[in-house]
Amino acid sequence: MSQNNYEELVSALLFSLQQRDTGLHNRDFLLTWEQPLDAIEGVIETAESLRLMVEADISTRVFDTGLAISLFRDQSTRTRFAYATAASLLGLSLVEFDEKKTQIAHGETVRETANMISFVAESIGIRDDIYLGEGDAFMREVSEALTEGHQSKILPQRPAVVNLQSDLDHPTQSLSDLMHLRNEFGDLENLRGKKIAVTWAYSPSYGKPLSVPQGLIGLLPRYGMDVVLAHPEGYDLLPDIVEKAGEFAKESGGSFKQVNSMEEAFEDADIVYPKSWAPYQVMEQRTAYLRGGESDKLDALEEECLATNAKHKNWECNADMMKRTKNGEALYMHCLPADISGVSCEQGEVSADVFEKYRLTTYREASYKPYVIAAMIMMCRFAKPADILRELLNEAKPRRAR
Amino acid sequence: MSQNNYEELVSALLFSLQQRDTGLHNRDFLLTWEQPLDAIEGVIETAESLRLMVEADISTRVFDTGLAISLFRDQSTRTRFAYATAASLLGLSLVEFDEKKTQIAHGETVRETANMISFVAESIGIRDDIYLGEGDAFMREVSEALTEGHQSKILPQRPAVVNLQSDLDHPTQSLSDLMHLRNEFGDLENLRGKKIAVTWAYSPSYGKPLSVPQGLIGLLPRYGMDVVLAHPEGYDLLPDIVEKAGEFAKESGGSFKQVNSMEEAFEDADIVYPKSWAPYQVMEQRTAYLRGGESDKLDALEEECLATNAKHKNWECNADMMKRTKNGEALYMHCLPADISGVSCEQGEVSADVFEKYRLTTYREASYKPYVIAAMIMMCRFAKPADILRELLNEAKPRRAR
Amino acid sequence: MSQNNYEELVSALLFSLQQRDTGLHNRDFLLTWEQPLDAIEGVIETAESLRLMVEADISTRVFDTGLAISLFRDQSTRTRFAYATAASLLGLSLVEFDEKKTQIAHGETVRETANMISFVAESIGIRDDIYLGEGDAFMREVSEALTEGHQSKILPQRPAVVNLQSDLDHPTQSLSDLMHLRNEFGDLENLRGKKIAVTWAYSPSYGKPLSVPQGLIGLLPRYGMDVVLAHPEGYDLLPDIVEKAGEFAKESGGSFKQVNSMEEAFEDADIVYPKSWAPYQVMEQRTAYLRGGESDKLDALEEECLATNAKHKNWECNADMMKRTKNGEALYMHCLPADISGVSCEQGEVSADVFEKYRLTTYREASYKPYVIAAMIMMCRFAKPADILRELLNEAKPRRAR
Repeated sequence: MSQNNYEELVSALLFSLQQRDTGLHNRDFLLTWEQPLDAIEGVIETAESLRLMVEADISTRVFDTGLAISLFRDQSTRTRFAYATAASLLGLSLVEFDEKKTQIAHGETVRETANMISFVAESIGIRDDIYLGEGDAFMREVSEALTEGHQSKILPQRPAVVNLQSDLDHPTQSLSDLMHLRNEFGDLENLRGKKIAVTWAYSPSYGKPLSVPQGLIGLLPRYGMDVVLAHPEGYDLLPDIVEKAGEFAKESGGSFKQVNSMEEAFEDADIVYPKSWAPYQVMEQRTAYLRGGESDKLDALEEECLATNAKHKNWECNADMMKRTKNGEALYMHCLPADISGVSCEQGEVSADVFEKYRLTTYREASYKPYVIAAMIMMCRFAKPADILRELLNEAKPRRAR
Repeated sequence: MSQNNYEELVSALLFSLQQRDTGLHNRDFLLTWEQPLDAIEGVIETAESLRLMVEADISTRVFDTGLAISLFRDQSTRTRFAYATAASLLGLSLVEFDEKKTQIAHGETVRETANMISFVAESIGIRDDIYLGEGDAFMREVSEALTEGHQSKILPQRPAVVNLQSDLDHPTQSLSDLMHLRNEFGDLENLRGKKIAVTWAYSPSYGKPLSVPQGLIGLLPRYGMDVVLAHPEGYDLLPDIVEKAGEFAKESGGSFKQVNSMEEAFEDADIVYPKSWAPYQVMEQRTAYLRGGESDKLDALEEECLATNAKHKNWECNADMMKRTKNGEALYMHCLPADISGVSCEQGEVSADVFEKYRLTTYREASYKPYVIAAMIMMCRFAKPADILRELLNEAKPRRAR
Repeated sequence: MSQNNYEELVSALLFSLQQRDTGLHNRDFLLTWEQPLDAIEGVIETAESLRLMVEADISTRVFDTGLAISLFRDQSTRTRFAYATAASLLGLSLVEFDEKKTQIAHGETVRETANMISFVAESIGIRDDIYLGEGDAFMREVSEALTEGHQSKILPQRPAVVNLQSDLDHPTQSLSDLMHLRNEFGDLENLRGKKIAVTWAYSPSYGKPLSVPQGLIGLLPRYGMDVVLAHPEGYDLLPDIVEKAGEFAKESGGSFKQVNSMEEAFEDADIVYPKSWAPYQVMEQRTAYLRGGESDKLDALEEECLATNAKHKNWECNADMMKRTKNGEALYMHCLPADISGVSCEQGEVSADVFEKYRLTTYREASYKPYVIAAMIMMCRFAKPADILRELLNEAKPRRAR
């Protein structure tokens, strides 16, 4: 990228950013649907500014010292590295909270521990998506503890809680997806009237979290898109969020509808996002059994669900299915890793030929996440992030020796 | 804090600091009682200077590159994060030594490994408090290996060994406690004649280390305080350290006495520090069984000890007990986490109402530890830490973008 | 070291370095024998420059932000800390890839994961030496994925894969060893005609990797040395690499021969490198059993091998053996940890008196590895590393506050 080019692009983004009233300063980023569009788009403008500066080898280091803490209650590589990348780009030292070493339960322990680890922390990234009804609640407990600690002057600064995937939402994923759409279609405004199929797809595993599809239907209808949610009967998402999706569509002039056919969802779609998940009723049941330690019932539930899944093996994104989309050339999206038929499993969410065609595109989609996380931290930690970013741009300190 | 305010405060601290002869340069910080008061107070002045600069968002980064290594032989969250925080504040990269991956035993292995990991290390923080008679000895083995490596020019610098809790002492805790007392009472000098009750308290667990109460009685009598050590008969601390406490009290003009009643200890106390521990004789027995892998005997010992503990459930810091203290308003202290009756256990060290009243105060007490650790590293690694700190103060580089 | 001294030394190294055509930029460092001497010696000149600057407390930080990723498929302390040290010296944030949390197998997963973790990575250090036929192959899979990701503009930079020990070679060890020889003998040129005994030695363990002796015979014959490889009959190294050793010797005017007697190898040797390994045929068998999960056969193989080993207990580097060497004063080398008779085992590779005589020398040998790793990263990541290093030298930014 030529030097002038990135400077102009970033300047334009910052001009827009500085006029936003995001309300994020000294707060957290937990759910997109509780954030104003100024916050959503502020994050995207910040993320894109950071990305352009990194590609131009300009330093984005805004912290001299300080911690970025992560707490993963579920296995993770991609999000773990995305968070580590964000920490490094901003100049923070990553420290991973290992619950195997210290179990932090509820109440007193959370309140105390959140303060004990945060004396110079700028962010606490949390992934907690296993138990329906718990992840978001846990993040709010941490958030309240940090607010108390900061108000009581125990903490000289108020770290931001960043939702790295909860039982409800996966905002770093959905904002990466939105950023990808923005860059593929040229502008957020161009998404208006575009049809996206957010659809269930068959997978030989079960218990996949709901937060990805919920994150998509909770965000994309706000941009005037025609969002079609498709799944076999019974594979429902949480009703509250489905309801929100409809309301957002009305407000934005877009549309939101649900169908029970992948074919129908794909028809003339501009974008398809086929991805497996478990019905929320199953996740509720599973949560109850997991809490109760009822492993026999868990095994039975898994067996039953896999059998039900197996009735829907035709929910595969393959060449025939793609032909139904706009000019047969819809943008295929996935949060990765995908269950690829004949590659990672016998039969899965997507056929090998379709995935291979879009493989590098899905890598690009994923490449936005570190910048989205870094942007969320910046928005929450600085009162005027546009000023900070403009200073970085003006200083243009090299990110690596030249 | 206003800019002038922190500048004046730090300047005063550094004026005092620069006149001290600490003897810490190129040495370790293992036990407070082998350090002169110049070293103790030098650490506190440095820690307080660092804290004031961090609160004023001034960079405390004194290392461009280098490692801060930690080795935890016992579970830890608080101290682990305190050490990570200290490393970040000074500009060091934290690397945790995982003994699950490499067991370093004694002799040759320690000598070699200590050198192999230390080529650019500035500090090695060690927590080893499980086996009576081992933790301190292990730290000294590491220390000797580092001295040999440095003298033989294998290591271009001599990393500091920082005791993050041994079988004998817990200096980062006791110095945080002393710093807390200094800030609560305005000055170390004001501690003279103040009565502190260091007392055993009931806990439904057993085998809690002795290093916290030993650290307190090995330090506070040096400040002219009236230190009362209270515990049920049989819950003795190591005799050597109890003896030192008495000597220190004599030297300083304070007092040290032992009683077998929490009530007596609390009577008219200015400060109370109720905390459970296991008798040193039990810890010796436990160490022997653990070494011998005698799990049956360990189980029997635990059962016996818990039964003995249970005879002393009245050793609880509750509202009635607090009424005995000076104006009923003694400062309650704890190293955290406390066993809180009705919260973290059925009955424990402290009642819920007393703990809640002092909860945020205990958080503040804990907040000093990262700065104490950073100060110990600075004192050991720089010949003239006051000069380094004054340079930081003058340069006043922002700790975060503004 | 006086200031002038290190400046002159580094300047001389950089004068040589800048004339080299290493071909390493945007590539990997996997096997020494596929690298030209310009690459080998470029790494050594860079490593020595970095080392001299670190000893003079000059900053070697060339990255403002960015990740250094490591992936260890085998236990490691020394190499893990050497890599962490290199990362810190260059200014990179270390992130360890934990395969317990995410198993990355072959094909699709490697390709995808390599990209997902690398958005701002500058290096990926990999240790994979357990399965014969796999480690090097895995590193090349990662390498190809990174090349694709970079060419497709998914990755703004192309991270370097650094071989931290594979089934074939251990280049960070062999280059540290070469650097040690250079510094002990004054110059690489002085190695010409020197006799080195690379010999098997008895150890009470089995299954030690072949990469250390293979790395030595694949490198040292390129420097005109007289390399004698000695082992009991049947303890063969991989034939391909033995063949390369012979060819290199011919090209350089040195010599390479194999004998079946430690005594013969030690005769008049300038340098001895006695180290245990398992025959490659055993490693092949072991790999097959490990893959097949055939634990009974593995146990039988181990028993058989230990019995065979035990026939060669006289392959010990002791005082009598050392008397055979040049003036009885050959340089003893080892990659550490050594099996020391009467210290780390009943009988092992080296007697306690011989090891103690050379102990600190082996520590020095090991001390080069962090610099070799840092140098490999610099060579792969910068088109003109000599210019970058000269800039560091001229700027002479302190590595620690003064």
